[in-house]
Parts: sequence; structure tokens; C-alpha cells
Amino acid sequence: MLDTVIIGAGFAGLSAARTLMNEGRGNFVVLEARDRVGGRTKAGKIGDIPVDLGGMWMAPTQTRLKSLAAHYNVQAYPTYLDGNAIFRIGTRERQGPREDPSRLLGIAGGLAYLFAKWKLERPMARLDTNQPWAHPQAKELDATTVETWIARNVYHPLARAAFRTICNSLLCAEPSQVSLLFFLHYVKSGGGLDVLISADAGGAQNLMFHGGVHQISRFMADEIGDRLHLNAPVMVIEWHDRGVTVHSEVGTFSARSAIIAISPTLMHRITFLPTLPQPKVAVHEHLFMGSSIKFWVLYKTPFWREMGLNGTILRDDTAITPVMDVSPPDQKNGLLVGFFDANRAINNADLSVEGRRAIVLEMLVEHFGPEASEPLDYVDHDWTDEVWSGGCYGAYAPPGVFTPYGQTLRATIGPLHWAGTETSPQWTGYIEGAIQSGERAAREIL
Amino acid sequence: MLDTVIIGAGFAGLSAARTLMNEGRGNFVVLEARDRVGGRTKAGKIGDIPVDLGGMWMAPTQTRLKSLAAHYNVQAYPTYLDGNAIFRIGTRERQGPREDPSRLLGIAGGLAYLFAKWKLERPMARLDTNQPWAHPQAKELDATTVETWIARNVYHPLARAAFRTICNSLLCAEPSQVSLLFFLHYVKSGGGLDVLISADAGGAQNLMFHGGVHQISRFMADEIGDRLHLNAPVMVIEWHDRGVTVHSEVGTFSARSAIIAISPTLMHRITFLPTLPQPKVAVHEHLFMGSSIKFWVLYKTPFWREMGLNGTILRDDTAITPVMDVSPPDQKNGLLVGFFDANRAINNADLSVEGRRAIVLEMLVEHFGPEASEPLDYVDHDWTDEVWSGGCYGAYAPPGVFTPYGQTLRATIGPLHWAGTETSPQWTGYIEGAIQSGERAAREIL
Repeated sequence: MLDTVIIGAGFAGLSAARTLMNEGRGNFVVLEARDRVGGRTKAGKIGDIPVDLGGMWMAPTQTRLKSLAAHYNVQAYPTYLDGNAIFRIGTRERQGPREDPSRLLGIAGGLAYLFAKWKLERPMARLDTNQPWAHPQAKELDATTVETWIARNVYHPLARAAFRTICNSLLCAEPSQVSLLFFLHYVKSGGGLDVLISADAGGAQNLMFHGGVHQISRFMADEIGDRLHLNAPVMVIEWHDRGVTVHSEVGTFSARSAIIAISPTLMHRITFLPTLPQPKVAVHEHLFMGSSIKFWVLYKTPFWREMGLNGTILRDDTAITPVMDVSPPDQKNGLLVGFFDANRAINNADLSVEGRRAIVLEMLVEHFGPEASEPLDYVDHDWTDEVWSGGCYGAYAPPGVFTPYGQTLRATIGPLHWAGTETSPQWTGYIEGAIQSGERAAREIL
Repeated sequence: MLDTVIIGAGFAGLSAARTLMNEGRGNFVVLEARDRVGGRTKAGKIGDIPVDLGGMWMAPTQTRLKSLAAHYNVQAYPTYLDGNAIFRIGTRERQGPREDPSRLLGIAGGLAYLFAKWKLERPMARLDTNQPWAHPQAKELDATTVETWIARNVYHPLARAAFRTICNSLLCAEPSQVSLLFFLHYVKSGGGLDVLISADAGGAQNLMFHGGVHQISRFMADEIGDRLHLNAPVMVIEWHDRGVTVHSEVGTFSARSAIIAISPTLMHRITFLPTLPQPKVAVHEHLFMGSSIKFWVLYKTPFWREMGLNGTILRDDTAITPVMDVSPPDQKNGLLVGFFDANRAINNADLSVEGRRAIVLEMLVEHFGPEASEPLDYVDHDWTDEVWSGGCYGAYAPPGVFTPYGQTLRATIGPLHWAGTETSPQWTGYIEGAIQSGERAAREIL
């Protein structure tokens, strides 16, 4: 009889396993449905450069990820920001340093943005990310979409476009689809809007890793050794007061407890016996995964820098936003990363890779000139297509879900403990949230 | 090689089959996952009286259902309405004839209700239920929850409670969860709010069937004969220009076309090869089924009628609403039907039947006196528990789904035709919508 069965070998499950090992509680197995670890992080390659097809960035305040990176000696480097970003709403194009909304949105637009941000921060101040559903205005905030809030509180079209783009980019969902309460929770859990949208020092898009963040998951997996089973989807979890019996493709495991470290939106693939309480089932059924296609474009050099540009493109009139320059500083090559997010991911998912490449290059040529039409390589990855993720970056709540059922996300049920970035009150939706959730779930059974 | 494979033997699939037969195109099979036909209608019994555990009522304007009932000689009888309904918001109780909001809500509440209804009808007038996503304000309406609309447009607490209860009862969902555009579409498809909330002449809760509406599905199934396969879940549909190959638990069927007549929320159980276009997948993934537990209580007599009551109870402070008197006129017994809807269904689904019975009887005793504590029988049915329905009565759209993806609900994809009440521009969510959708899908391939 095992102490624990951990389900899922993303950063959450691996962190749970590592925490148990460090406490001398190594009597567990980790069951992973895929043929790889890492969950929503994934190894890719463009040219000869290893890249992250999924989660990638680290904010300097993400202490657990930082500590893991240091432990495994994976080095970080910053997103390139010298020079001007391109910001276009409709046909109106501006350039400016990336972190200054008044330059990017104009004076009136910048003021409208700052005023709206202040209005967003007022209800956020009273929100406890450990229990957003307990907010004094929880019901009202949760009955409102982010789009309704934008339409009523942002008094300038450029600033409205900025907020919509922010929602698209943070959650890979449309503002019309997302609960305002959930949005406030998500933003606060990462330290506020300024942090989440920033690639500058302190921002959530500030640092990347040489060789990719996905390496860290493989280093963790190496330590776990043969306790980790790949290609091991779990079909059934029987649970009772004394423990669990987990039926998977690679066999049946009995244990005193289980840590379930998968996306809540994948939970319907596991049959629980007895069935879970209905409010718990409801939260799994009613959260959605974001939709994202991430692409990489490799050039011989970062030639846009010579034009005074930093490679960042933020637009609301194309399928693609944002684009950023993430060229590794030890390489001569220029490397851009970008995203088809939310509805634009769904609407371009049926294209061939060549079709999406053409869309991307057309936009890059528009801003960077004909040199952009001949990259060394183009790679993309559609996360809505990954059966065992079901989307990226994380799950979001439509209106009317978090208030009635949110508290079931993380609450232990008998021998069942719940991890995954969606359960984290800190950095929910990020790798950091996944790590913290796995460590917390492990501590629950220590 | 068959002409058609019909998937699902609810009213939609059966109506498609019947239409094909009537046109001399009987070369088809019907594959049904369950061990019974009828879908979200289902035979039950309380005492010796056969009842409908699911869909039950008919509006006089539901021409296709009316015609089927006449064809199979199933007789209808009206909901009992003589006397007063009980309407309670908080601790404030009123009695009045069921169809008069000014009596039930008070003068101010009634006026607020009528004014709000008028405001709802204005955008509804411009909505085409064949293409609600083409409404001139579609994006704005679809970015708004019904609750946001109520909070801003209904100027009296009793009237607000009435609209919330209406949303609960029509969609088995909370107003905070439902897109306003979808709500307008749903209401208009059934002929407007007055029709949908009414049990009076012309209303959607006006008529029931002796022996139950579910009988009609069995009569239809009898005509289809051994072309109908029960216990035949479909796992895979391969599709291409020339037709389909459908892999089910009872074998593989090749045909020129398929009519898929299941709830959109169950579509993820079928693997399509090649995968469906992503906007189509998105609509399936982003619609939710309502949550409903339907209960029946049988008494020796309808004793509440002697108290001047018609058995109708509408409240917003209990788990249960509404309750109605549906005693068959050819019986001495008193028969009440009622619902745990929306969050109240989810929050009471984990109780035992005895637990729910106690909640129901406690409320009935409160209104009808101690005689209500001793029914001859109590029966209930939790539709969230029916694996092959996934909820009741129908699917609803949260915000931001119908505008971008709604048009994929009904659109033919190569050899794949889509039926089910959710695809119907008339009486969507009702049995009538299911019948019309099946007939329409059959006509597409004639």
C-alpha cells in the first residue's frame, strides 16, 4: 500500500512529489497520461534553439520557480525591451516604450486607462485570493462580465481596446466570456495588473530560461525516477475514508491519499466512485480552458532593433497579439514569439501551419519590412489540440461559477487532495501557481 | 450501405427517422446510447399513475407535438389553475390568480415587472431566432449576463425576484450564468415571456398528457422497429465527402449521411475523424446544460383546492420553485409537481431522496397544513445524474459564446447534419423544438 498516488506530472504534480521526497515520504507513484512530463510546458525547437512551446516566462517575484531554477542551475535572461513597441488600434499606430501607457495610448487614452485601472483596483483591494467568493460584492462582481465592466468604466476607445487585449492575453479568453470577479482574483493573485502585463523588471514576462523552463520539469522527473509512470491515464478513482484505489492504463494502485494535479476541465475524464459532491462536479464542468496558439519565428538577426524597435507588437485588428523579441542573448539570431489568443486561436486552429505562418509573416513584413518575409524557421503549437491540456494557459470562470462553487476547487474531500495552478491563491494560471499548489497539497498529507 | 445513421433516439432523432420513413426513405438505423428512447422525456410512476420524469407540458401552439399526440391518440389535460397561487419573496407572501403579476407582485412591483418586460421586448423585436448572432446589438447583448440586465433594468425588488425566478425556471440556470442574447433568443423562440411562464390557455405549461408525453416517443420507436438499436453508444464518426462510418457499441455502420441528434454538451463523447472545425467544437464545449431535479408528490385528494389554492407555489427563499397542481382530471388523487432548479438542483443533488422529500414536505406543510405531511408517495429524478442527458431541460449559453460560435450549431458539415432542440429556431429547449429540429435535419438530406 502506497502513501500517495499523484495524478499528473505537470509542475503541480512534480512539485508535490518533490516535496514528499524532501520530507522522506517517498512511498508514492506519479501517474501521467502523456508520454512526457511538464504539462502545459513543453520542449520545442526552432532552428537549433530549444524553446518552450508552452509556459515560458518567470517574474522575479515568483519565488518557488526561481528557487527551482537555481537548484537545477537553469539560467534566466530578460525579454528584449530597448527601443519602441508598436501599438495599433484600428488604423491608428503609435510607437513608444512598452511600459508607458500614456505614450502608447495617447494622453487622453492613457488617462482613461489609468483611471479605469484605479477603478479596478478598488474592489480588488478587498479581494482575498484565498477566498474570492467571500468578497463583500462577490455576487455582483461574479454576475458581471469583464466586457460589461470595460464598456461602463473605460472612457476612451484606445483604453478599452487595451483592456480587451489585456484580457485576451492574460486569460486567452474574450472579455465577454470572463467573470469580473474571476478576473480580479486572477490579476490580484499575480500581484496586480502592472506586474502581469509587464515584461520589464518585475513583470510577469520579464525572464526566460536558456534551454527553456520545461527542462526544470524533466530534472524534477529524473529525481522521481521510476515512481513516475508515463502513458498512464487514470480512468477510475475509488475513494473512501481509508484511502483510494486508482485504476490507470498501467495498473491499479492503492494508497492512503491521492493528489490530483490536473486541470479542473479534464476532471470529467476520471470516474470517481462514489461520485464527487455535485458542487465540486459543477466547478469542474463550468470552468473553461483558455485557447492559445503560440508561435515562434527565427531570423538570422534581430534586424528590427536597427529600426529602433524592440520587437513588441500589440494590435487589436489582427489574429495575432502580442509579439515579443525573446532572442537569447548568447545567440546571433533574432527570435520572436507571439500568440493567437482566445477567439483568434479558435478561428485559426483549422488552418494549416503554413496558413498561420503566412498570417504571421504578413504582419511582420508590415512592421519590419520585407526582410521579415524570409525567416529561417517558423514553429507553432496549438494548445487547444493537446488532449491532456485542453487549452492554455489556464482555466477561467465564466460568470456565476466562482461564487457558488469556487470554494470546492481546493477543498480536500476525504483522501482526495487537489493541486494544479487553478487551485492556487498566488499566481493562479502561472507555473508558479502550479508549483505552490503542488507543495501545498503535499503539505496537506504530511 | 445505408442512407443515414441517426444518432440519438430522443424526440429529435425519432422525428428525423419518422420523417425519412414517411418519405419512403427507410434505409437508416437509429443508434441510442441508453436502454430506452425518449431522451429528456422519461416514464415514471407515482402510486399507480404513470408520470413524466422529464419533459411533460405542451403549449397549444406547439403544432408538431400536437399533431404527433393526435396521431398516436394521446390525450391532453390542463394544469389546474382555479383559485390562488402562493407567491413569496423573502417573508412577504401574497396570493393571487397565477397569471396576474400586479396581484402577485403588488402594484409597484407589477408595474416594474411590466416596464422591464417592455424593455426586454424591444431588443427581442429585432432578434431573428434563425440567427440571433446577427442581431444589430448582438455583441453587446451577448457580453451581458441576464443578472446584469435585471440589476439595471428592473426597479423593484419583487419584480427582480420574479425575473430571477423566471430565469431559474425556464433555463434551470442562474441569471448570473446566462447570456442576455441567449435569453432573448430562447424566450422569443417560444413566443415570448408571457407564453413561456404561463400555465393558462396558450401557455407553455398549459397541457399535459394522460399517461405521459414519453409514450409518444415509444410509439414512434415502435414504428421504426428493428432499425432502432438501444444500448448503442457511438464512439467514433469517420466522415468525408462521400459519407460517414459510425463506430458504435453494437457495430459499425456506413451511410451517405448522419443526423446527430444529441445534446451539444454530449458531443465530446464522440471522436470525430477528422476533428470538427474548432468553432464547432467551441460551441459544444462552451454550452452548459441546465440543472434540474423534478419531483412528484401524490396525495389522496387535492385538498389544497378546498383552501382556495390552485397548488401553485412560487418562492425565491427555498430550494424549490415552482410547484404546480397537475392532478389528472380522471383521478381522485391530488398530484403536485415541482422542481429544484439551477444552483438549488446542484446543492441538493447529494442529498438522499428522503432528504429532498423532507425539504419538499416541510414547505408544503407550511402552505397547505399538516395534511401535506403524509403523501401517498414521493418520487424525484435528478437529471444532472443522467449520463446521456447531462442535465435538463436544455443547454444554455454563457456570455460570449453565441455570437462567435452560435452559427455552427445547426450548419451542415459535409455529410453531418445536426438536430436536437438546441438547434431549433422555434421552441428551442422544448420537446417541440426537438421535433422540429429532427424534421428539419431529415429534410436536409431528402
